[in-house]
Amino acid sequence: MINKLLAVSVVLALGGGIATEALAQVKPEVLVKQRQAKMILQGKYLGPIGGMLKGSIPYNADAVALNATFLENLSRMAWDGFDPSTSSVKSRAKPEIYKDTAKFKAAADTLEAEAAKLGAAARAKNEAGVRAAFGGVAKACGSCHDAFQEKL
Amino acid sequence: MINKLLAVSVVLALGGGIATEALAQVKPEVLVKQRQAKMILQGKYLGPIGGMLKGSIPYNADAVALNATFLENLSRMAWDGFDPSTSSVKSRAKPEIYKDTAKFKAAADTLEAEAAKLGAAARAKNEAGVRAAFGGVAKACGSCHDAFQEKL
Repeated sequence: MINKLLAVSVVLALGGGIATEALAQVKPEVLVKQRQAKMILQGKYLGPIGGMLKGSIPYNADAVALNATFLENLSRMAWDGFDPSTSSVKSRAKPEIYKDTAKFKAAADTLEAEAAKLGAAARAKNEAGVRAAFGGVAKACGSCHDAFQEKL
Repeated sequence: MINKLLAVSVVLALGGGIATEALAQVKPEVLVKQRQAKMILQGKYLGPIGGMLKGSIPYNADAVALNATFLENLSRMAWDGFDPSTSSVKSRAKPEIYKDTAKFKAAADTLEAEAAKLGAAARAKNEAGVRAAFGGVAKACGSCHDAFQEKL
């Protein structure tokens, strides 16, 4: 049952300097919690899409569009939290994040680009496109985690 | 410095039944963590807008548009986590959430509507509109917390 239609149309400008001004006021422990919150919510919205593609949940194109759009937004929410001030806060973030910053930035950009592809395919109700883009997102998650996240 | 332009255009359909199917597989403790993650990220993106409106951070219309759009998405991410199965998990959620469901749903709808107004004003680079809508969002947060969230 569809009970609400919401149109969100956005042209966003992301500036490197914007985040920094706000960051100066935020404690490293808070930045880490915010990063972790983003990861938790990505899991929330990625999981059901995976379940639908595997067939363990019935495929619902509206749900996929919603989840993928949330993911597209979430994919952009953690990077400014990987501030060098957080390097001594306990987390699964590897020190390589603050050493190989170009590689980390590239991994971040890859996730954002793949999540944007998934969002576009999902909103177009293109199931084959969703399937292809989901693989790209999963690969982006995995390769970044392999390089920059401690194993549990 | 603007280093990226991203266009996200969305028409979303939210279905009551969609969430329920996915929820059946999620443990109550996980639902609570996901709700809390959403609250943490709302704070992240609401705070800087408040700081800019107060003048403690220079006003940056691009940053406000980005933050407000993230908030508009985040405002819709927690409600399905307030499942009755979570009522025994320790959190600040009051039992009234599961008793007065109509009032809670109205509070949720109010936040979503106010966040959508803030997003629209921010993307239109309408600072006066942002100021007015920010008040609406803050009021929606506060009145819902007063009714449904235990004090710290």
